[in-house]
Amino acid sequence: MTKQIRDAIEQYVKLVGAGPTEAIVELYAPDATVEDPVGTPVRQGHAAIREFYDVIGALDRDTELRADTVRIAGNEAVFMFTIVTRVAGQRFTLTPIDMMEFDDAGKIIRMRAFWSQEDMAIEPE
Amino acid sequence: MTKQIRDAIEQYVKLVGAGPTEAIVELYAPDATVEDPVGTPVRQGHAAIREFYDVIGALDRDTELRADTVRIAGNEAVFMFTIVTRVAGQRFTLTPIDMMEFDDAGKIIRMRAFWSQEDMAIEPE
Repeated sequence: MTKQIRDAIEQYVKLVGAGPTEAIVELYAPDATVEDPVGTPVRQGHAAIREFYDVIGALDRDTELRADTVRIAGNEAVFMFTIVTRVAGQRFTLTPIDMMEFDDAGKIIRMRAFWSQEDMAIEPE
Repeated sequence: MTKQIRDAIEQYVKLVGAGPTEAIVELYAPDATVEDPVGTPVRQGHAAIREFYDVIGALDRDTELRADTVRIAGNEAVFMFTIVTRVAGQRFTLTPIDMMEFDDAGKIIRMRAFWSQEDMAIEPE
């Protein structure tokens, strides 16, 4: 299970950086929930999750997993990654910590992303 | 609230490294829960939490917060820290990611620690 979870996390970060959205959605179980960032309304189900990732899917972006932060315990995991997006000559760098819970098939059933505006760096390109 | 949470996290890591146990327990609300590591039985209330921290309170140890990992969202936070314990000529290094939820008074109401045996390094001193 640990290896399955680790693979899913690596795949997730890679797909968030490169898409396609549908492949990200397929990492989630049909009734999965996404709370990103923590404290905002929870999105549930593939349609709502697709809508969420479609927003970043339209942006010029890349991601990197901070491999030394991956922690797996039971059927849950946390990890930090960096996402850089480039919009209108600005470069936005965000490094959230995501928490994920998995079902026995290795699908994500819950994702919660910990970050706030303070964790976003904005620079000219 | 963000500053209050950040202060509590700094205080927590410092006290886990130096004690006393009672000061750690006081960071928790009376009915708080602790799940450490995630996947093991949840401890609830000051008496159970005291018993948990008394175990490490007896060890030669120190801690360090990885300040670049602190992420605060709503009334919850995650952070990574390192705890080094020395027992019988061996040095145990563990770097968990802890998740905490706080009440309005800034007391911890829930703590969940993400780590597994794989994240523990054991070396001779």
